[in-house]
Amino acid sequence: ALVLRTDGDCWLFDCGEGTQTQLMKSQLRAGRITKVFISHLHGDHLFGLPGLLCTVSLNTNADPQQNPACVDIYGPVGLRKFLRVTLGLTGSQLLFPYAVHELEPTLDQSPEEGQLSMEMIADDGPLHPQEQPGRTICLDVSTDSYLLFENKKVVAKAFRLFHRIPSFGFCIQEHDRPGRLKTELLKELGLKPGPLYGRLKAGKSIILESGRLVHPSEVLEETIPGRKVCVFGDCSSVLGDGPLRLCSGADVLVHEATLGNEHREKAVDHGHSTPEMAAAVARACCARKLVLYHFSQRYKPSSSQKDGDDDNVLELKRQAEDVLQDSSVEVILAEDFMNLPILLRR
Amino acid sequence: ALVLRTDGDCWLFDCGEGTQTQLMKSQLRAGRITKVFISHLHGDHLFGLPGLLCTVSLNTNADPQQNPACVDIYGPVGLRKFLRVTLGLTGSQLLFPYAVHELEPTLDQSPEEGQLSMEMIADDGPLHPQEQPGRTICLDVSTDSYLLFENKKVVAKAFRLFHRIPSFGFCIQEHDRPGRLKTELLKELGLKPGPLYGRLKAGKSIILESGRLVHPSEVLEETIPGRKVCVFGDCSSVLGDGPLRLCSGADVLVHEATLGNEHREKAVDHGHSTPEMAAAVARACCARKLVLYHFSQRYKPSSSQKDGDDDNVLELKRQAEDVLQDSSVEVILAEDFMNLPILLRR
Repeated sequence: ALVLRTDGDCWLFDCGEGTQTQLMKSQLRAGRITKVFISHLHGDHLFGLPGLLCTVSLNTNADPQQNPACVDIYGPVGLRKFLRVTLGLTGSQLLFPYAVHELEPTLDQSPEEGQLSMEMIADDGPLHPQEQPGRTICLDVSTDSYLLFENKKVVAKAFRLFHRIPSFGFCIQEHDRPGRLKTELLKELGLKPGPLYGRLKAGKSIILESGRLVHPSEVLEETIPGRKVCVFGDCSSVLGDGPLRLCSGADVLVHEATLGNEHREKAVDHGHSTPEMAAAVARACCARKLVLYHFSQRYKPSSSQKDGDDDNVLELKRQAEDVLQDSSVEVILAEDFMNLPILLRR
Repeated sequence: ALVLRTDGDCWLFDCGEGTQTQLMKSQLRAGRITKVFISHLHGDHLFGLPGLLCTVSLNTNADPQQNPACVDIYGPVGLRKFLRVTLGLTGSQLLFPYAVHELEPTLDQSPEEGQLSMEMIADDGPLHPQEQPGRTICLDVSTDSYLLFENKKVVAKAFRLFHRIPSFGFCIQEHDRPGRLKTELLKELGLKPGPLYGRLKAGKSIILESGRLVHPSEVLEETIPGRKVCVFGDCSSVLGDGPLRLCSGADVLVHEATLGNEHREKAVDHGHSTPEMAAAVARACCARKLVLYHFSQRYKPSSSQKDGDDDNVLELKRQAEDVLQDSSVEVILAEDFMNLPILLRR
């Protein structure tokens, strides 16, 4: 699992078995998890979710004056039934409501045997007592993406990947922020701090007492671009042009690299990527940082490196770096408890 | 989780999240798990099961000449649907067939809110590709127990417990074995090793050439009693007279002790037991060994004992021992990777 921290909230990406245990060992507080994104329904990305929600519930400090906020969960069709049945049959009560917003995959996101039958996904049973109706989100063909939500700070979208079963990637895009006010210049214009500063900062023109029109672009420094984080689920390729368009200029692009380049055929057979394939995506997106994860168990962690040891994750890093030599993409190997600050580009 | 090893097979009791990880760290081989017993459907006893089955599958060395054996899973009604949905939606394929044999609880095994609705347990969907139809087992009123299976070596039964949701205990009872042949005596009778020895050992009389009838009891040493292992699920009490009757004389009785005696009211409110309550069960059954498990997280492991520290599991052991002072019941605290040999009483 991967956590994106935004203003104290934690957004969780995927949730394999044992996620709650690792979360407890981390600096993060389970009660802060407010959104969960599930890339695909394979067990190693999902089996930890019911237990995690129970743990989050134990760590919820519900303010008796306020109704606890709803935890929004995004993932492929089938996820709603998975949670309804696992939480329901185990009598798991949560101290907060949750809603599952399901993404409709398209038929070309997996081989035919990876598609769920209608019988399998039928979720016509009663809702879990803490479940709130979720949305079913279809592909927006014009942008080749799924709009998950948008608020004052960010817009979150999903995009299609090809894997053994339908898989998605997620793009969290912060809105651009206006540049700082050029306060020296404002003083020269005779403007004192007050509501007019706010209007300018909000991008609106004002008229001075002298009748002079002040356009925001005159008195604002350059716009501060919003940050963009993209997390890919398991995949052997992207689908359509949505993914690369959405992830263009990502500050951080998280991509799997299950097997080394020399096992490309096997990787693709199993719906997975090599470092070279991940690097190609990062290059096409002009990402700033490429974080590799989801290494096959055959690769030893970097801490146990020996010279000439090909089965070490450092070799995977080298393979990605080879492809990115002439670019400025930085390659990083994900590991448990790793912390990666994403700074504003001022 | 707890594993009973019998002739190289591993029988697993309950399966919380992380069981597969601990199993991998143990001396046990996942591929050897052939039977699973689930006491009740709470997540901390169940959420590890789908992942465990996937791991068992990865460790199955299927002989291509032979069909792999079926893994039999026993547990309360609802378990079949739980596995069908979790394995089905995640596209988990297993290299072996499995069957879920469901126990019908009675209405007095839990408060009303702990009972599953018919809607919840409806498992009318298609079977998982590796699922074989399982039995639905009802209470045998004459013995107040559930007959799970019987083979040449053992008979396995379940019994009813009271908890927040229906909970069961399991009793694995080895058949008695005939005593050793008194070979000296047989020689005196002029009998040489051969098929007649087998007949006597099997409890059948034989007639010597002289016409003398030899009854097995003449030439066999005392019967070797079969061993008995009883594992209780979470409970605040047993239900009916089946449990104590079944567990009478258990070599090992495994019972939960979630909270210390001083928290008895809270324990019972939550459907749990104290060391005193567990000890009373062991005493009533004349068990040889009482293994306590399922300690609240407030209790520190025995390794971190300090003088005067009441919140240590050793205090729970002391509380059970107090009740059993004048008995020969040995109290043992369960811990991960603990190995407890159960010897034949010769």
